[in-house]
Amino acid sequence: MNEFELYNFNPVTPEIVKQLEAIVGEKYVIFDDVESLEQYSKDEVPDPAYRTMPEAVVRPSNKEEIAEIVKLANRENVPLTPRGAGSGLSGGCVPCCKGIVISIDRMNKIIEIDRENMMIVVEPGVVANDINEHLEGTGLFYAGYPMSVETCYIAGNVAENAGGGKAIKYGVTARYVLGLEVVTPTGDIIELGGKLVKNVTGYNLVQLMVGSEGTLGIFTKIILKLIPRPTLQADLLCLFNSSDEAISMVPKIITEGGIIPTSVEFMDKLSVQAGCEYLNESLPYQNCGAMLLISVDGNDAEELEEQYITIGKFCKEGGATEVYVADNSSTSERIWSVRRNIAEAFNLISKRQCNEDIVVPPAQIPEAIMFLEQISKKYGIIIPCFGHAGDGNIHARVTCPEDWSDEKWHDSVPLILGEIYAMLRRTGGMLSGEHGIGHKRKKYMDQVVSPEYLALLKGIKKTFDPNNIMNPGKIFDMV
Amino acid sequence: MNEFELYNFNPVTPEIVKQLEAIVGEKYVIFDDVESLEQYSKDEVPDPAYRTMPEAVVRPSNKEEIAEIVKLANRENVPLTPRGAGSGLSGGCVPCCKGIVISIDRMNKIIEIDRENMMIVVEPGVVANDINEHLEGTGLFYAGYPMSVETCYIAGNVAENAGGGKAIKYGVTARYVLGLEVVTPTGDIIELGGKLVKNVTGYNLVQLMVGSEGTLGIFTKIILKLIPRPTLQADLLCLFNSSDEAISMVPKIITEGGIIPTSVEFMDKLSVQAGCEYLNESLPYQNCGAMLLISVDGNDAEELEEQYITIGKFCKEGGATEVYVADNSSTSERIWSVRRNIAEAFNLISKRQCNEDIVVPPAQIPEAIMFLEQISKKYGIIIPCFGHAGDGNIHARVTCPEDWSDEKWHDSVPLILGEIYAMLRRTGGMLSGEHGIGHKRKKYMDQVVSPEYLALLKGIKKTFDPNNIMNPGKIFDMV
Repeated sequence: MNEFELYNFNPVTPEIVKQLEAIVGEKYVIFDDVESLEQYSKDEVPDPAYRTMPEAVVRPSNKEEIAEIVKLANRENVPLTPRGAGSGLSGGCVPCCKGIVISIDRMNKIIEIDRENMMIVVEPGVVANDINEHLEGTGLFYAGYPMSVETCYIAGNVAENAGGGKAIKYGVTARYVLGLEVVTPTGDIIELGGKLVKNVTGYNLVQLMVGSEGTLGIFTKIILKLIPRPTLQADLLCLFNSSDEAISMVPKIITEGGIIPTSVEFMDKLSVQAGCEYLNESLPYQNCGAMLLISVDGNDAEELEEQYITIGKFCKEGGATEVYVADNSSTSERIWSVRRNIAEAFNLISKRQCNEDIVVPPAQIPEAIMFLEQISKKYGIIIPCFGHAGDGNIHARVTCPEDWSDEKWHDSVPLILGEIYAMLRRTGGMLSGEHGIGHKRKKYMDQVVSPEYLALLKGIKKTFDPNNIMNPGKIFDMV
Repeated sequence: MNEFELYNFNPVTPEIVKQLEAIVGEKYVIFDDVESLEQYSKDEVPDPAYRTMPEAVVRPSNKEEIAEIVKLANRENVPLTPRGAGSGLSGGCVPCCKGIVISIDRMNKIIEIDRENMMIVVEPGVVANDINEHLEGTGLFYAGYPMSVETCYIAGNVAENAGGGKAIKYGVTARYVLGLEVVTPTGDIIELGGKLVKNVTGYNLVQLMVGSEGTLGIFTKIILKLIPRPTLQADLLCLFNSSDEAISMVPKIITEGGIIPTSVEFMDKLSVQAGCEYLNESLPYQNCGAMLLISVDGNDAEELEEQYITIGKFCKEGGATEVYVADNSSTSERIWSVRRNIAEAFNLISKRQCNEDIVVPPAQIPEAIMFLEQISKKYGIIIPCFGHAGDGNIHARVTCPEDWSDEKWHDSVPLILGEIYAMLRRTGGMLSGEHGIGHKRKKYMDQVVSPEYLALLKGIKKTFDPNNIMNPGKIFDMV
């Protein structure tokens, strides 16, 4: 039974569309237009099975309009799915119960740069990258750096608690969210937190909202903490003969070296190749066995140099065949561009993929990578791996061989994932480090979390959303 | 109506005590012994109005015993109040509904130091300071540093989301809590999070638990993140003629200087004097108008020196009469000791005090301090101020003049606090930055938060604790 059948929602009628038009203006409602609606049916999950056409799309311009739409949805028993840039990887913004998609793309203003408090106040539809562009010259920066930084919206980053390339040093999105204005699933407009770096006035609903995948409300204003922008950065590209060698460097650098790099990105052979091919890049290293992209930043040139020399030395001792240092921004950008585009590159190679986002204790990464290699041999498939090795978070692309039938693929996926998730249970890992559960992983939740935990999540959802109209069918089902 | 009358709890009968004894052993239950029970009736709130005698105290040694006790409390409709070291400042561990106090003092083991993952696993009753003592020689440290670090338990730090002296650079307790084992208010034992630096598998209940003041469960195991211990630290003691001058330095250092100090502690004239007198310290600076204690840490001696020279220069330019540098640990400890003991010093001076824990946007600290000075003049009282100026978090001790009657004091407190809280609303501040709401501040909650927010808190509480037996009467009342 799919979600649409599971819940007894009403269809979006022309009468409801009229009400939507009355709220936001005719121009900002899409209905009865397959071509226009189709782009709201998906995110970056390659498998077409995770697409659903919305019945209508509405594009409000302010919180009052959103509150009205939410009240309408409750009144009419129609599901709402909030949508950012659609760059997610777990189907979080896909309207799996049909109904209305509520797009925040028109709410894209930087409201305030508050230099004295080192904060920025933004609307939800601001592109993540634009934040740092607006901060140019202030000496401040926002530390969030998801790989989709050039397209994703900040509200999506908050809703998914995006991680990204700098989390090992700067933490994930959650650390920077100080305040939220939210339209609740019942249509109230509430303020949570504020321009406060500390606050224990009641339960921490700001942090409950972060990572709640659009199931507990729609963000209409976001207050982010900024930090002084480091003036210097250097990137090291370290080539290894094997994944094992590369990955075993990670805990060494941090614990023995006492260095917290800004980034420690791992790419296996297949990932490097895919990224290079996609960008039509021809780089000397694209045939290496595995690669680490390690960044350090700071304000003191000597200290920075000392750090990258130490890291380089560790890597050489650990079997690196080459260590390149990129200390200028154009070389850095070339290297990072390969890393940022791997996901997209793989999406083009095959639609028959499961993009897993496993997270384990950081020191268990070598064990996890070895296990994935065993699994790929056992099933005769490839599982390219890349990601944020320093955080224990690896993206593993379980990829269907070209000569497999769809049937064989669909029969094998649950077996393969079952083995991977059993490994996660053994190592203290979890299903997702940064992509979220969404629609795609909810059926596997009970393999790693307890029924008591799930019951608490559902209780919280019920408190916020008694009619289950806000992004239903995500993370868990209300049954 | 007090909490005991508000809720229809049953008394703790000798039969219930027998059941408690059967769970933990006779030796670990206190009943019918006023002298022994009395020490569990209070925390560090000086006002005796915030004390309540428990009917019984139970001291379990493991999670299974706690789960049994919780189930018993549900069955018998008797309230439970979890208690750490009793060093709190909002009445959080005071059994305001009578019933059973559950003390975690026997669960005080360091379970594991995991150097590879840079984490430590501890039982809830470990004294915060002991964590870093155990880490001596590992190159790692736990960044939490509440002022009660020598006595407080880590579970209390987590329950209150303790801030402390290093939050400006390292963040508050929340940032370091990666995993929790919790006995829920219904007696289930659940694991939340784990040895994971990133995790978006379901709502972030770890962060919901942090700061929930013992109302959503009892922590039985805590996984904390560690960071590389900086090898160098320097403390600057900067004396000023006035609070204004001192406080206006804070945003300057951070935004203009681009320096995030480890600590920026502010003490006004009265606070410095009280701290010195309490310790019988005779220091050259105890008659200054106000003082900033600023620490910086790192691994590079030159960078550190550059930082404290810059800070010293800013302070001198801003009117500092003296800037002392303490770069050895014994001088540092002497200075910090004064700061850590201010709260205790004031507690001895008068029981008729309100220890406020206001938090405002950091840049609004000068405005808040000026306002408090106006208020103290208006009412003819003193309001010594000290605290974590860098975080926007100030402890303001509203102190009753000796010649006021109790009646005049009790009539004036709501008026004075009403004005202070109105200022908080105007500046975007909140009631508490790190001490919590507890029993003491709940009646003021509706002055700063919305009814919709409070309703969500109550809904969450109901989900976790349908019978309202876990630390009832704290943060809000379930009515």
